[in-house]
Amino acid sequence: MTESASRPPLEALITEGRGGILLFGITPPKVSTSPADRDRIAGVTLQRLAPLDLDGLILYDIDDESDRVADDRPFPYLSTIDPAQYYAEHLGDWSKPVIVYRSVGKYDTHQLSDWLAGADPQRELGVFVGASSKDKRVRTTLREAHRLRSRHRPELTLGAVMITERHAGRGDEHLRMLAKQDAGCAFFVSQVVYDVDGTKSVLSDYIYACRERGLTPRPVIFTLAVCGSLKTLSFLQWLGIQVPGWLRNELTYADDPLPVSFQHCLHGAEDLAAFCRRLGIPYGFNVESVAIRRAEIEAAVELAGQLRPLLR
Amino acid sequence: MTESASRPPLEALITEGRGGILLFGITPPKVSTSPADRDRIAGVTLQRLAPLDLDGLILYDIDDESDRVADDRPFPYLSTIDPAQYYAEHLGDWSKPVIVYRSVGKYDTHQLSDWLAGADPQRELGVFVGASSKDKRVRTTLREAHRLRSRHRPELTLGAVMITERHAGRGDEHLRMLAKQDAGCAFFVSQVVYDVDGTKSVLSDYIYACRERGLTPRPVIFTLAVCGSLKTLSFLQWLGIQVPGWLRNELTYADDPLPVSFQHCLHGAEDLAAFCRRLGIPYGFNVESVAIRRAEIEAAVELAGQLRPLLR
Repeated sequence: MTESASRPPLEALITEGRGGILLFGITPPKVSTSPADRDRIAGVTLQRLAPLDLDGLILYDIDDESDRVADDRPFPYLSTIDPAQYYAEHLGDWSKPVIVYRSVGKYDTHQLSDWLAGADPQRELGVFVGASSKDKRVRTTLREAHRLRSRHRPELTLGAVMITERHAGRGDEHLRMLAKQDAGCAFFVSQVVYDVDGTKSVLSDYIYACRERGLTPRPVIFTLAVCGSLKTLSFLQWLGIQVPGWLRNELTYADDPLPVSFQHCLHGAEDLAAFCRRLGIPYGFNVESVAIRRAEIEAAVELAGQLRPLLR
Repeated sequence: MTESASRPPLEALITEGRGGILLFGITPPKVSTSPADRDRIAGVTLQRLAPLDLDGLILYDIDDESDRVADDRPFPYLSTIDPAQYYAEHLGDWSKPVIVYRSVGKYDTHQLSDWLAGADPQRELGVFVGASSKDKRVRTTLREAHRLRSRHRPELTLGAVMITERHAGRGDEHLRMLAKQDAGCAFFVSQVVYDVDGTKSVLSDYIYACRERGLTPRPVIFTLAVCGSLKTLSFLQWLGIQVPGWLRNELTYADDPLPVSFQHCLHGAEDLAAFCRRLGIPYGFNVESVAIRRAEIEAAVELAGQLRPLLR
């Protein structure tokens, strides 16, 4: 608690390029959830997270990505409450900032402008997410969304996503990061990292490109998620997350994959922390649970607790 | 020395599936080398290796692989002395076994049969290497070579190569290993390992396939090579060795890549040793220098010395 009090607020940790950031990512409840249950869920969540020394929450904006892959989605797609609405109506007890995700293609420019105008830059930050596939019809492109924010709400601290798996294929994720940085993004949040080696390659290409161009590297926040079942494993893979073959085997053959993935997440975080420190990249961690099983959520909270020491 | 004396000979370490094997890989001098220089080179080499607690030497059989890639070969291809001939004529002072590589496609079946007939199974082991590309014209196929050895010289302990990079593309390297094991191979020697994660995936697929089929895993010997210059780096890549992007950057931007690659080799070896121990795969290391620069050769010897403790 005292430690938390001595740290600058999230927005300053980001804009000053300090890093040392610990976040927890939350998916709002389904729209079918009753108002009473929404409050109850929010209360349980905040109670679970209270012992953690977090700098903020991430509130996801879930988009139907079934256009992206032909395979059946292991967990069904269900519309979830708008993250800003969930924050406004049910997270009043949360005293720290939130990072509101925006799958910008879901909204027209008026809706996005309205949200930008209403957001409180002292308590809210944003992350714009582009289309999940090239062919997806979007109402607003990522480029347009960046322009809207620069024009109407430049004081809102904005972040962007970093996707290791895109780099493995095309080798240009660091250039996308630079372009987003140029468009005003002050930090990056990774997709769930299971491919630590590939993530190091994105970071490496990014820092050398920054040095070449005389740019200051922006904080990179690594998202980690434990995997407690084969269904969660197939969901991670459905999401496009590259799980190294040997780890996929270990999770598949384990009596209980949860402790195996927990250790992998922790070791990966140590590896990434040491790597970022060596290269001078400010960094942080974001923990989420992609499944709603109680054991996986509790392990995610436990993981976040064990990550804080890596941020000093 | 006492430690070495208490270890069974190489052939027993392999056939009994014990592992704990340390080798050093040597490319014989070019055929243009004078007999006096051949002796001098052999003497210098053995003197350099004398302080190491090796279980044996690997003698490579260099093949012109220019069919495999269109890029210019960073170090020119020059015919080298036949490894068995180099052993017979110049390595008389070497008291431990040697593993003679055979790029089988270079030889007709009579030549291979002659070598098999003349090899001393107490002092010599073999590794058969297949064609470097699908389209290469060969005089003997790997399958034919395996058949020759089974028929004429089954008492000669035979090994096979393991190539991580093939697994990354096709995901079937563990099946090739099983097929080679079925054809009589008692151990595997990897191509130079820079992609540790990918190598762990081959090993993982291999051990789970062994368990499924009720087979005993055979020793896997990991080849490590330091990289002391950008020319060596491009040669490694020309050889088809996958160097992770972040490491390629570090080697490229380092004032001196040699200590960077040395540390990577050592950490990779520790990682692989822990992984093999956990999965119950007998293992060993083979160190080679792909360049002939003195600093790189000395670093290779130093590396081999530091690997012995990982084999206990």
